[in-house]
Amino acid sequence: MEAKGKQFIVDSEISWQDLGGGLKRKIMSYDDTMMMVKIEFEKGGIGTPHKHVHTQMSYVESGAFEITIGDRKQILKAGDGYYIPSNVMHGAVCKEAGVLIDMFTPMREDFVK
Amino acid sequence: MEAKGKQFIVDSEISWQDLGGGLKRKIMSYDDTMMMVKIEFEKGGIGTPHKHVHTQMSYVESGAFEITIGDRKQILKAGDGYYIPSNVMHGAVCKEAGVLIDMFTPMREDFVK
Repeated sequence: MEAKGKQFIVDSEISWQDLGGGLKRKIMSYDDTMMMVKIEFEKGGIGTPHKHVHTQMSYVESGAFEITIGDRKQILKAGDGYYIPSNVMHGAVCKEAGVLIDMFTPMREDFVK
Repeated sequence: MEAKGKQFIVDSEISWQDLGGGLKRKIMSYDDTMMMVKIEFEKGGIGTPHKHVHTQMSYVESGAFEITIGDRKQILKAGDGYYIPSNVMHGAVCKEAGVLIDMFTPMREDFVK
């Protein structure tokens, strides 16, 4: 089932997309205003620093990550989260294998092209 | 530290707000466009059916929940999620104690008054 407009999101029904470099992604659901994405990292996997106009809030579902936001870094672990304002540079380095839940507003058109 | 604009969100530094009925809430972070909220449910805890203009996407961090969206119900468990379009009625009944991560766009003014 397509992710767009999916109301009940059953993890086991969604296939991983392999992003390379020890990262895998599932687009869980989205509408025009919002998108939920699950990303699994192997230890050492890197979310290369980047920025985008979308506001992002992320939840650390499991594992541990060194998160960089602007010029600050912090280790965050399962149960923690982070907030990326629009157009602020950010990146992640996975210190212990785990999963991030990324939410964006508005949705990421570039993820569904 | 206030939740507004918090970029690195450390779970252990945030106090629970007791909502009664076996529910507790932490406001993790927010800006005008988005808010992240963590809610812990005891088994049997109920999120009474309601609706709001905000788009909501929720992630089931742990436990199991019977989620109602409009006139449909489904059991969702750790790793799953759900999407509530603007102004659609929804509710939750906790079947196994656990935690939901709720994201809203725009932020919930009513949670910080």
